[in-house]
Amino acid sequence: MKLVIANKNYSSWSLRAWLALRAVGQPFEEVRVLLDQPDTRERILEHSPSGRVPCLIDDTLTVWDSLAIIETLAERFPQLWPATAAARAHARAVSAEMHSGFPALRSQMPMNIRRQLPGRGRTPASEADIARVIAIWLDCRKRYGRNGPYLFGSFTAADAMFAPVCFRFQSYGVEPSGEAGAYLATMLAHPAMREWQAAALAESEVVPADELPD
Amino acid sequence: MKLVIANKNYSSWSLRAWLALRAVGQPFEEVRVLLDQPDTRERILEHSPSGRVPCLIDDTLTVWDSLAIIETLAERFPQLWPATAAARAHARAVSAEMHSGFPALRSQMPMNIRRQLPGRGRTPASEADIARVIAIWLDCRKRYGRNGPYLFGSFTAADAMFAPVCFRFQSYGVEPSGEAGAYLATMLAHPAMREWQAAALAESEVVPADELPD
Repeated sequence: MKLVIANKNYSSWSLRAWLALRAVGQPFEEVRVLLDQPDTRERILEHSPSGRVPCLIDDTLTVWDSLAIIETLAERFPQLWPATAAARAHARAVSAEMHSGFPALRSQMPMNIRRQLPGRGRTPASEADIARVIAIWLDCRKRYGRNGPYLFGSFTAADAMFAPVCFRFQSYGVEPSGEAGAYLATMLAHPAMREWQAAALAESEVVPADELPD
Repeated sequence: MKLVIANKNYSSWSLRAWLALRAVGQPFEEVRVLLDQPDTRERILEHSPSGRVPCLIDDTLTVWDSLAIIETLAERFPQLWPATAAARAHARAVSAEMHSGFPALRSQMPMNIRRQLPGRGRTPASEADIARVIAIWLDCRKRYGRNGPYLFGSFTAADAMFAPVCFRFQSYGVEPSGEAGAYLATMLAHPAMREWQAAALAESEVVPADELPD
C-alpha cells in the first residue's frame, strides 16, 4: 500500500489520509511529492492518475481525496468510525462538514506548521468558522467524552479530518478554553501528530502563499 | 425517515440527498424549508440541530451533509455504491472531489433550475472546472459504460453527487459532446431528476444571488 502526499508543512489534505493510515496500523510506503516544483504535476501523475494528492494506491485500487481514502480504508478497518450507528452518522456529518466547508479558515489561515502567526487571518468570516469548529468539538465532547479524549471517545476518522485545524489553531494562536482547549492539546500531543509535525519542521522548502493548497 | 431540504430550484446539496433516497426506494417525509425567509434558520433548527440542510432524521440518528447522508444510507443500501471494491473507491474519489471542489463552478454558475443563462458565468476558472467534470465523466463512462448508462453503470451515489452539475450545465448552456453529452442527457431524463425539476419550476420564491447556497 502506497500513500502519495505533498509537503508535510503545508498539505492539510495529505495529513488526514496519513493519520487515518497510522490510526489503523496499516504499514504503507509514503511517497512525498513537493508542491510548487517545475515537475510537481508530472510527478504526481506518475502515481495518481487524477493529478491529485493525497492518493492511496494498492494492488487493486487507486483512490484520491482524504475523505474517499478514509471511507475506503474504513471498509477494511471499521474502527475508523465510531461503533454505534448514531455516533457514526454524527462523525460522518462533522467530517463531511469539515471536508466541504470552512472556506474562510482555509484561505485566511492556511496550514503552515513551521510558522507562528498569532492573531493573523482573523476576519468576521474566519472567526465564524473558528466558532463553528469549537461548537462541533464541544458538542462531540459533551456527548462522547465519557468514552475517551477524542471527538467520539477513541481516535476516529473525525479526528483525522479536524487535525489540520489543530495545527492552524496552534500556528495562528487560537486558544479555545475548557473542553475544546483540552481536545486541542490532546490532538497536538498525539504521537502521529507529533511525528508529522517533526517532519514538517525538518522540511526546508518554502511554498509562496498563492501556491498553497487550501 | 424525514429529509429536511431547501428550495428545489436552488439547493444543490439537498438534491443529492433526495436523489439518493429516491434511488434506494426508501419512503421518506420531505420537509422543505425556504431559504432567505425571516425564520429560515429557526425553522431549520426545529429539525436539524446543526442548522444545516440537507438533514436526514430517523428514529435513531440525525445526519447532515449530502455525502454523510449518502454514506449513512449506504450502510443499509449498499447498492448506492458500485459492487466492486475498485469501482467503489473510484466512485468515492470522484464524489468526494465534487463535494469539496469546483469552487468556480459553484460560485459563478449557481444552480437555478428555472433560469436559462447560456454562456453566463464562464471564466478561465469555471471553464477549468467544467473541463475537469467532463474528464471525470469520460473516464467513468470509458471504464464502466458497458454496465449501464450512468457513471458506474447503474445509478449510484456518484450520479447523485454530480446531479446539480447536470442542472447547471442545462441552465448555463454547457453542451459536452460524445459520451459526456450522452451521460448528461441520461441524467436529465432520469425520472427523479424530472420530478425534482418539475417541483423547482413550480416554486415561485426568488432568492437573491448573494443569498444563494453554493
